[in-house]
Amino acid sequence: MMDSKRYQAGLARLNELDPNAAQHLKETFQAICPELADLIISFPFGEVLSREGLDFQTRELATISALTAMGNCQPQLASHIKGALHIGCQPQQIVEVILQTAVYAGFPAAINGMTIAKRVFQESGIIDTDSDD
Amino acid sequence: MMDSKRYQAGLARLNELDPNAAQHLKETFQAICPELADLIISFPFGEVLSREGLDFQTRELATISALTAMGNCQPQLASHIKGALHIGCQPQQIVEVILQTAVYAGFPAAINGMTIAKRVFQESGIIDTDSDD
Amino acid sequence: MMDSKRYQAGLARLNELDPNAAQHLKETFQAICPELADLIISFPFGEVLSREGLDFQTRELATISALTAMGNCQPQLASHIKGALHIGCQPQQIVEVILQTAVYAGFPAAINGMTIAKRVFQESGIIDTDSDD
Amino acid sequence: MMDSKRYQAGLARLNELDPNAAQHLKETFQAICPELADLIISFPFGEVLSREGLDFQTRELATISALTAMGNCQPQLASHIKGALHIGCQPQQIVEVILQTAVYAGFPAAINGMTIAKRVFQESGIIDTDSDD
Amino acid sequence: MMDSKRYQAGLARLNELDPNAAQHLKETFQAICPELADLIISFPFGEVLSREGLDFQTRELATISALTAMGNCQPQLASHIKGALHIGCQPQQIVEVILQTAVYAGFPAAINGMTIAKRVFQESGIIDTDSDD
Amino acid sequence: MMDSKRYQAGLARLNELDPNAAQHLKETFQAICPELADLIISFPFGEVLSREGLDFQTRELATISALTAMGNCQPQLASHIKGALHIGCQPQQIVEVILQTAVYAGFPAAINGMTIAKRVFQESGIIDTDSDD
Repeated sequence: MMDSKRYQAGLARLNELDPNAAQHLKETFQAICPELADLIISFPFGEVLSREGLDFQTRELATISALTAMGNCQPQLASHIKGALHIGCQPQQIVEVILQTAVYAGFPAAINGMTIAKRVFQESGIIDTDSDD
Repeated sequence: MMDSKRYQAGLARLNELDPNAAQHLKETFQAICPELADLIISFPFGEVLSREGLDFQTRELATISALTAMGNCQPQLASHIKGALHIGCQPQQIVEVILQTAVYAGFPAAINGMTIAKRVFQESGIIDTDSDD
Repeated sequence: MMDSKRYQAGLARLNELDPNAAQHLKETFQAICPELADLIISFPFGEVLSREGLDFQTRELATISALTAMGNCQPQLASHIKGALHIGCQPQQIVEVILQTAVYAGFPAAINGMTIAKRVFQESGIIDTDSDD
Repeated sequence: MMDSKRYQAGLARLNELDPNAAQHLKETFQAICPELADLIISFPFGEVLSREGLDFQTRELATISALTAMGNCQPQLASHIKGALHIGCQPQQIVEVILQTAVYAGFPAAINGMTIAKRVFQESGIIDTDSDD
Repeated sequence: MMDSKRYQAGLARLNELDPNAAQHLKETFQAICPELADLIISFPFGEVLSREGLDFQTRELATISALTAMGNCQPQLASHIKGALHIGCQPQQIVEVILQTAVYAGFPAAINGMTIAKRVFQESGIIDTDSDD
Repeated sequence: MMDSKRYQAGLARLNELDPNAAQHLKETFQAICPELADLIISFPFGEVLSREGLDFQTRELATISALTAMGNCQPQLASHIKGALHIGCQPQQIVEVILQTAVYAGFPAAINGMTIAKRVFQESGIIDTDSDD
């Protein structure tokens, strides 16, 4: 699988978001399901997120919208906010996407998403770390 | 409420998506909850979706992503696909947003969203009406 | 099971909401899972909804709130709105419960819940049947 | 926005639940989205939860029901349980609302909601803190 | 893609459930997203559902459990119930899986799942068609 | 309630999964809702999960599928993975059930479920504890 064109396309796509993610995925699930990392790289990243027809920044903003609305994918939401910043999405775009999920999925989803974004923005040095948490 | 600046901003925003939507909302809920239409116009459209910091097309693509992932908002998903086309989103962008929810919310959500998009695209003359439904 | 105290308590509770519901449940699932009706009557209605500590009207308003927020239980939401009216909840209380789910679960959930309430209110003669649907 | 009638109505409503909440909201999201606190105060609290037609205690019990059923809003569920106690809801009413979500949203939702209520009740001195957690 | 080993494995797997499904998928989405059918055949069926380590009947019962619990995938639930029968799952096994989702996802999910199973069982001649719907 | 046939059947069923669970449930909710443990034992375990028509191992795999797909029941998912191992489900069967939820509920649900399974497998000595978490 790792020699395939789609695996290589997926690896390149994932590396754009986070150059450490592929290695981290492999190590995390090596003992329990060694194929999981390869499946994630080759299908979502290699066959879906690397498609043409929609630029990668808009893809990531749409992903942040879906994960915030679903409300039960905190680790993935944090990763995609970090990745979106990495490929050049503006912090304000991310804030706006999260804020508008209040309309579609309710204020708790938006507030919990904003709390995750705040932490990622602090870790990325975009906003100051404060002491009120 | 209807004279307020935010109501007027909301009405203008909603009219961009669908010039008939405000009147339809008012009539639909007049007998049971007459304030509902005004609340929808003044808060989601007047205070959230009309904010700066994210262009309207990207807002709509993010909305389509959230509604497809949630999977239980079919009437709203159809309206926002129609509205997204109306403000200039490309059909292929909408298709890509729906397709990638397969990754985050599963194939049934993506398939059911694509079925709704197909119907809207047919009604809009973007694709032919066929006979296989 | 049908002679048990909890079955009888559940049947009495369910009859308060809708005197035809028990018979309808039995007939609907007789061929595929004949115990389902008895389980519904004896556990939810006999052991939970007939408990003390919360009046039945408030129980039903809380139920309408949960079902509207979940957004994927339309038949049950319609039944409980009908039942809530039957035990004396005011239409305006039901409208307010549904409206406030916009805050917690988003506007689509509230709008779809209000659409169901409108239909039930029309069937119950609380509001006029109009021709805009 | 903060001078508006609805902001003042919302602030009064929120203060009934928790006199420290508004200040806490402002501080929490000041650096990332300074308008979020004002939007929460003026729309959900100022325009929805302060409406007539349903008493505030029943509104809070309905909110607890929705948040328990949704199952992915733990911080908000804890806040609303605390707020409901603050405006005079009986602990037993809260327990009953959470328990009956087992019927509509399943036992895990009810058990996880009860675990949150237990912690809030312990912090409020309603039940003793024990050592089994 | 259609020549690949995983596409062929996926097609074989899907044909076990329903020999007409692949052709139907292709026709349904040909005009809006022609790759969707191929992606469904090659990834879910070719790379996941055709894996070893779990027999196909148990896979389908687990799928029916997830779809019933999610509650917003009615077309897929109907297809998988039909498919499960086709590969030899007993009707009673399907009924039991659906019934036990009442415990985990609530009675509305179980009741709505059972209603779909009833219709599929009637279409398959497993139970008689009655007139009470 | 505790003398009833269904309570005894439920206790026996629950003990198969985890001989300490009943006592733990009682202690956990004693102060806030003392009937909760008895309700859980007598209804889900006594009246549903102890039914005939589906073997207990398949019931548990279906439960793991539903809980992974729902994505907001982490404590219950961990307990049922532990219980499934205890009644003889193979680790690989559990891994496969979780992996295939990626298809139906999305990759975040599957990844978060796999992370929980990894922790349970480590605690059970099935896989080594590593240092990358």
